[in-house]
Amino acid sequence: MTNLITEVTELAKEYQVALINLMKIGTVFSGEAIFNEVFFECPCNQKEAKMYAIMLILGPAAAMFFIALLINKMSFRMAYGYCKRSEELQFECQTCCYYFVVIIIKALVGPAAWIFGTLLDGRYYPCIRLEQPCNRTSEEFKEYRGHSQFLAIVMLCVTVAVIYCVFMCRACCCGYSYNYRRLMEIYQEAEETAFEDKLNETAKQKAERNVNSFLNEHPTKRDWEMIARAPPLNC
Amino acid sequence: MTNLITEVTELAKEYQVALINLMKIGTVFSGEAIFNEVFFECPCNQKEAKMYAIMLILGPAAAMFFIALLINKMSFRMAYGYCKRSEELQFECQTCCYYFVVIIIKALVGPAAWIFGTLLDGRYYPCIRLEQPCNRTSEEFKEYRGHSQFLAIVMLCVTVAVIYCVFMCRACCCGYSYNYRRLMEIYQEAEETAFEDKLNETAKQKAERNVNSFLNEHPTKRDWEMIARAPPLNC
Amino acid sequence: MTNLITEVTELAKEYQVALINLMKIGTVFSGEAIFNEVFFECPCNQKEAKMYAIMLILGPAAAMFFIALLINKMSFRMAYGYCKRSEELQFECQTCCYYFVVIIIKALVGPAAWIFGTLLDGRYYPCIRLEQPCNRTSEEFKEYRGHSQFLAIVMLCVTVAVIYCVFMCRACCCGYSYNYRRLMEIYQEAEETAFEDKLNETAKQKAERNVNSFLNEHPTKRDWEMIARAPPLNC
Repeated sequence: MTNLITEVTELAKEYQVALINLMKIGTVFSGEAIFNEVFFECPCNQKEAKMYAIMLILGPAAAMFFIALLINKMSFRMAYGYCKRSEELQFECQTCCYYFVVIIIKALVGPAAWIFGTLLDGRYYPCIRLEQPCNRTSEEFKEYRGHSQFLAIVMLCVTVAVIYCVFMCRACCCGYSYNYRRLMEIYQEAEETAFEDKLNETAKQKAERNVNSFLNEHPTKRDWEMIARAPPLNC
Repeated sequence: MTNLITEVTELAKEYQVALINLMKIGTVFSGEAIFNEVFFECPCNQKEAKMYAIMLILGPAAAMFFIALLINKMSFRMAYGYCKRSEELQFECQTCCYYFVVIIIKALVGPAAWIFGTLLDGRYYPCIRLEQPCNRTSEEFKEYRGHSQFLAIVMLCVTVAVIYCVFMCRACCCGYSYNYRRLMEIYQEAEETAFEDKLNETAKQKAERNVNSFLNEHPTKRDWEMIARAPPLNC
Repeated sequence: MTNLITEVTELAKEYQVALINLMKIGTVFSGEAIFNEVFFECPCNQKEAKMYAIMLILGPAAAMFFIALLINKMSFRMAYGYCKRSEELQFECQTCCYYFVVIIIKALVGPAAWIFGTLLDGRYYPCIRLEQPCNRTSEEFKEYRGHSQFLAIVMLCVTVAVIYCVFMCRACCCGYSYNYRRLMEIYQEAEETAFEDKLNETAKQKAERNVNSFLNEHPTKRDWEMIARAPPLNC
């Protein structure tokens, strides 16, 4: 039994990125299904309907994009201290661009899933195109619904094909062999974990030492006031 | 299995702030959904309806704002002893402002989620704008509902974008590198924990010593009366 | 009880490839069933309907094909460093072709299941062939539905027969006996596991050593900035 769990864990680790993306996409899809059921209703005025549908396709996608940027550690890692870093320590332009592109692409997964979902659902697109957007039983509605799903499938195929080509090109032009690159990946992850552990340990030891020495030296009222000051970590 | 649990815990720790905010927002949303189902009903008199809807949008938001201030430790930490602190120990104006802004922003998460929810729900806004607020099947109602959801999405996008920009600027102008700042954060947390532990320990020892010495010295009736007095911690 | 579990695990290991394919096909089928219920609706315009149905048969199949390529480790393993490999280390053309065919065939399992499912479902094919594609009660619709299911069964039989023949031929022309080949298979798997474990171990040791030496040497601000740089693994 434990054998099975270990194997599943191993598999999960190996396909980590794929799994995370799958979870992201699944979350977006289920969120979208609920959202559509509860909130989407096409207004009858043509102009209004157009604005409304476009907003509901692009708005949440834009919000998701910024949220994804917000919880991406990498971008903040590069930004911290940017303005006060000495010239020689600045990132090279090439590295910077590379990471910028990677961050953007990662942040686009959610929005792409949202737009794909709205197109596949097939109620937003007719809402944009129809002259009488309220009428959801007309021939025309069905036709535009078909167009919408058509676009969704094309979008899916093109996206996946492009991603495959980009990954393939990157792999071909890489200077490392597959297994050596794998070692480097594993090393990076291990380094990060070890660094984090060591930071925790160091901080804990230091904190305990400081607190002990403060409380053992019979602090005066003035000392208590001093430490009442908020800590100086204001950035 | 334990491996999995450890990893989940690690992840939860890393994205602590994001998780807490997510939980806050989730609580507000589910509370709002129940609240709306049970309590919201737009009155038919236009003027009444306007007042009612505005009250139900802004009232709970204001309440949440004050509750968030109330459970924020930081503000009390800064306020305690403010009037009786010697001049030299007062916070600098800059630090004070910084923390004030941070506290306000944290307290705004709940209210913002509430207002976003009411706008997305799309029944409050028509209640404010319609001339016959009772009629929920009219064309006009649908139109205003669309406006409301439109506003909600715009609000979401703008908020997230602004937050991202602010965080990015703060990161760029910070004098520390990402990893050094991380160490400081971890240190602060460790110090707080250690301080709390030490306070508990010290207080317990002292209390036990005092109680013991009181009970071992055969207290008279007068001594018992003395300690019946409420303790003098009146602030 | 444990005996039973062990036996099931053994069985699962022996028929691993078959099980994985079964799971793939099952996932495709259930996904298709949901997809059809929610999204498929044949437009009434004949030309539109034709395009729509063909797209919904071939589009997802193509997407699945590319996704399968994308999560296939083998192709990336061969591609990494392709352009920068010295002449003598390039794969031989024969090996290359063999793996290429294997990768393609593996990636075709999902698409084939999808197409088989659409044909067996029997709503896509009439949508392509009927002159009045909306009318789903006509005699003609039933007829074409029959054709579609007929095609599905033929496709299934032919595919399975071809696969059997190919496997048989390969087995006959193989220079090893069944059991020796089995030993080689098991050896390969064991080697991969051992390699992976060793990589993990090596990386972990090295990472811990490096992190310790960094934090023990009282890093200056410049050192902290240095490690804030993103790691150089840009391919």
